[in-house]
Amino acid sequence: MVGVIGGGQLARMLQAPAVALGVQLSVLAESEDASAALVIPSAPVGAHTDTTAVRRFAQACDVVTFDHEHVPADVLDALAEAGVDMHPSPAALVFAQDKLAMRARLTALAIPCPRWAAAHTVLDVVNFAAVVGFPLIAKTPRGGYDGKGVRVVRGIDDLADWLVESERDRHTGSGPLRDGILLEELVPFDHELAVLVARSPSGQAAAWPVVETVQTDGICTDVIAPAPDLTAELAAAATHAALRIAGELGVTGVLAVEMFRVGEHPAYPDGFLVNELAMRPHNSGHWSIDGAVTSQFEQHLRAVLDLPLGDPRPVAPWTVMANVLGGDYPQIYPAYRHVMARDPGAKVHMYGKGVRPGRKVGHVSVSGEDLADLRERARHAADYLQGIITE
Amino acid sequence: MVGVIGGGQLARMLQAPAVALGVQLSVLAESEDASAALVIPSAPVGAHTDTTAVRRFAQACDVVTFDHEHVPADVLDALAEAGVDMHPSPAALVFAQDKLAMRARLTALAIPCPRWAAAHTVLDVVNFAAVVGFPLIAKTPRGGYDGKGVRVVRGIDDLADWLVESERDRHTGSGPLRDGILLEELVPFDHELAVLVARSPSGQAAAWPVVETVQTDGICTDVIAPAPDLTAELAAAATHAALRIAGELGVTGVLAVEMFRVGEHPAYPDGFLVNELAMRPHNSGHWSIDGAVTSQFEQHLRAVLDLPLGDPRPVAPWTVMANVLGGDYPQIYPAYRHVMARDPGAKVHMYGKGVRPGRKVGHVSVSGEDLADLRERARHAADYLQGIITE
Repeated sequence: MVGVIGGGQLARMLQAPAVALGVQLSVLAESEDASAALVIPSAPVGAHTDTTAVRRFAQACDVVTFDHEHVPADVLDALAEAGVDMHPSPAALVFAQDKLAMRARLTALAIPCPRWAAAHTVLDVVNFAAVVGFPLIAKTPRGGYDGKGVRVVRGIDDLADWLVESERDRHTGSGPLRDGILLEELVPFDHELAVLVARSPSGQAAAWPVVETVQTDGICTDVIAPAPDLTAELAAAATHAALRIAGELGVTGVLAVEMFRVGEHPAYPDGFLVNELAMRPHNSGHWSIDGAVTSQFEQHLRAVLDLPLGDPRPVAPWTVMANVLGGDYPQIYPAYRHVMARDPGAKVHMYGKGVRPGRKVGHVSVSGEDLADLRERARHAADYLQGIITE
Repeated sequence: MVGVIGGGQLARMLQAPAVALGVQLSVLAESEDASAALVIPSAPVGAHTDTTAVRRFAQACDVVTFDHEHVPADVLDALAEAGVDMHPSPAALVFAQDKLAMRARLTALAIPCPRWAAAHTVLDVVNFAAVVGFPLIAKTPRGGYDGKGVRVVRGIDDLADWLVESERDRHTGSGPLRDGILLEELVPFDHELAVLVARSPSGQAAAWPVVETVQTDGICTDVIAPAPDLTAELAAAATHAALRIAGELGVTGVLAVEMFRVGEHPAYPDGFLVNELAMRPHNSGHWSIDGAVTSQFEQHLRAVLDLPLGDPRPVAPWTVMANVLGGDYPQIYPAYRHVMARDPGAKVHMYGKGVRPGRKVGHVSVSGEDLADLRERARHAADYLQGIITE
């Protein structure tokens, strides 16, 4: 039995390969109507922050993995003490949970990163701005996702709400920040890339082709697999970096490495910089469900069970995935019929989640040979499902 | 909610596309550990022969479909009376349940069939044998599957156990048979083919490529998609026949038409003869899970919900599917690891069923360009999983 902490759409999408492989899943769900709880028979309800509930859940499972990276360190410690077999391990997971720890470790490994600094006081911010200039990027080390906990800082005023109220002293530049934050240069990137790899406890690893992720307002909206116009050298270097991170950090399961692609520039000789890490199936790999021999969800299951990994090769020259975000259009069923009728080749995935503006409620992918056509079809289907177009 | 009567592997394999499409399934299962009940949250236990249980189950569902064709006519009648929306309808399903009704109807539609007769007495058998000669084929009209209820008859003695005991009089040749049986000529076929189509209540239909099914002792062991060495004319004629059967019989959902392929012969001008019908996802279509844009399981769900049908095109030049039958090798896990390690491209499907000799417990499929290689790989994986080879 594979236990998954968290009942979101990532846990839900593990169910199809689990059925095929004959693997039983159990999910610790936020509620009875959580996305994964609707489709997995064993779905006890409990909070991922409740040590007792999580430990009881984990002890009924052979291995435990995660739908998200929000399980607190003290809960992970309690599981480790109880001898629970976790994938990824807490020692690896910390680098996906804590962005300061991640930057420090990747820098020690000489993996290309944006220039960065840890800031505990306004003076730290001022000093870093003196090096990279404003605007710069500030991130809370923990808890952010989909653009939350990340902001562009054009001046100290933009951090006002992160300063400690009682000691705020912007004029001296010495006020402490409420918590340490991560500062990064604003990278003048051309595109965003993601490299998905999987690694098993035995050390076997596999990589999918590098993909391009198209972001809108900090949320990934489209993924193109493989990334267009990428030289073989850059693809190999980016893949090598991701595999090296997986190995050095001891990641087990799927690792997503989000990257910036930067053009010819003396400051960025590698052509890419690592942006974020996620140690679980990731939105940038949803294309692989219908577009690869082995999907990220099947591979994650194989990896956490230490089974031999599957072939990650694509089944078509191109696959494009478009996210469906909740819109102002709550009646999704007529749109769903329309999309199926208009495009019999569109693979529609709905997550069984209530539609709320901006929430990821599903995705569509299309595979084939004509990239421009695929991009139009995927975007049309997603826009139609989210009510942006109704023609 | 789509209700499925019967909790076997066909119901189980509906779950993956149901998760993707956001469709909730409920399965009326034979037991709590039935193949489908292990992976579908809503799985009440009840017998398909129990009118009260089936009616209660069906009334909680929007539409009802079937894992097998064994639901008795009186149960179907009770559901129809209660206004249950069934796909296929009982009026169509009878032609998959009753082989005599099927032969009469197909003959009326001028669909190529083997020569056949209904036999109620030994005299009927003798008369038919006088036309087609011995050996001939005898089938019980209802309840057979995987070669059960079918036998080769070399003489009247081979039917001894089907004669009414008290009135048996083999010497006069006039004894009555216990029930009416179907007699068919033994067709000198080259290969067996299957044509899978799907049809929705709105009348939309879609066909997958014609496949070749390789049978061993009356059980399908391998499927090759598409069927090799088939002329475009024969493929088109076979597909046309299957689509015509679906339309004329008013089938909704997936229809599998099993056929004999016969060589150049004046008695068989069409080159094929229809053998059997199944109105549900079928073993000959398992290749489509990994080998087609839309699998038979997704298409069946779309059809029974009257959603637009998906693209049935293959994703690779060839896909080969091999069934895993239960063998004398109860420890399947080491074999499962071996198969994954030897062939990362093999798609392994296990049904969560106890291993008993001859029982279908899983299948493996492989897709690619080199048919001979794919056949070897699929067969090796299946033979290994069933303990026939252990190298």
